Amino acid sequence: MTLQNQDTQAEHRAATIRSACDRDKESIWKILEPVIRLGETYALERDLSREDALRYWFAHGNETFVYESDGRILGTYYLRRNQRGGGGHVANCGYVTAAGSEGRGIARSMCQHSMGRAAEAGFRAMQFNFVISTNERAVKLWEHLGFKVIGRLPGAFQHPGLGFVDALIMYRTLDAVGKKV
Amino acid sequence: MTLQNQDTQAEHRAATIRSACDRDKESIWKILEPVIRLGETYALERDLSREDALRYWFAHGNETFVYESDGRILGTYYLRRNQRGGGGHVANCGYVTAAGSEGRGIARSMCQHSMGRAAEAGFRAMQFNFVISTNERAVKLWEHLGFKVIGRLPGAFQHPGLGFVDALIMYRTLDAVGKKV
Repeated sequence: MTLQNQDTQAEHRAATIRSACDRDKESIWKILEPVIRLGETYALERDLSREDALRYWFAHGNETFVYESDGRILGTYYLRRNQRGGGGHVANCGYVTAAGSEGRGIARSMCQHSMGRAAEAGFRAMQFNFVISTNERAVKLWEHLGFKVIGRLPGAFQHPGLGFVDALIMYRTLDAVGKKV
Repeated sequence: MTLQNQDTQAEHRAATIRSACDRDKESIWKILEPVIRLGETYALERDLSREDALRYWFAHGNETFVYESDGRILGTYYLRRNQRGGGGHVANCGYVTAAGSEGRGIARSMCQHSMGRAAEAGFRAMQFNFVISTNERAVKLWEHLGFKVIGRLPGAFQHPGLGFVDALIMYRTLDAVGKKV
């Protein structure tokens, strides 16, 4: 076991993932803001206001969570249904890790937590609609967690530095997850 | 040329596609209601109310159109961006033809119109997020109009008669369209 893994394990023992509440909003905005301003991984307006960003993250129908370690919020995610009606059994999530806390397994923990929560809530599958292909760390992580690229949207994302790049649709069923939770 | 094609051509000469206005709402609801109640082609709650259905069809950011022939509304569609921010150059549409008016080229006319309108508005591509795989006539028509199936979501739609069926993601660029319009 590498030192990094030991650190990661210690990190996760001390951490909790819990529902977000109103008093988390400032911490969540501090995590979202640099990601939105950079505009490389989320299809959101780069000049989105705090109010609009929080309205998006806490939209009606979303369950919003935070990853908290030692009293500090280091990550956040939302969980929602991806479609209505006959498509309502497929979940969708978005995850963001705080700047400077990447590489510590926080996104992985949040994704694992979200799959458990989704299975518990009765969702049968999870879909990511718009994973930017240049966000290689995310693509690799989701693949490691059982997601498959089921579609590639050519040039569907205008990256601020790279121009038009592909976006990926990733999908996995949650059959196996429900049994482990 | 078959008689059907002559009819279709006469139909389209007499028809116009125009922006929907408030007084079209009753006609639009009469077109949407049976499709929503059937629940076989749209991921919407089958018991959706008139108010909620019209709110969806005329959602903020949608441009909504009607296909009118001889003073009768025989079809309707909406056009919107499919994603925000860096994904805002890809359009999305939904089309519905009035019960009893299928097979007359109305959906085809609306889709052609929507591609022209989207190109004119600066969209570079069009994406359908959730074409139900059992809606074979629609899949064939979109393919004929230049859309490709770029992804298949296994079991992502619960069909009221057939159980869990696949949904398709279809996509095409609009490069060629702008030049023809």
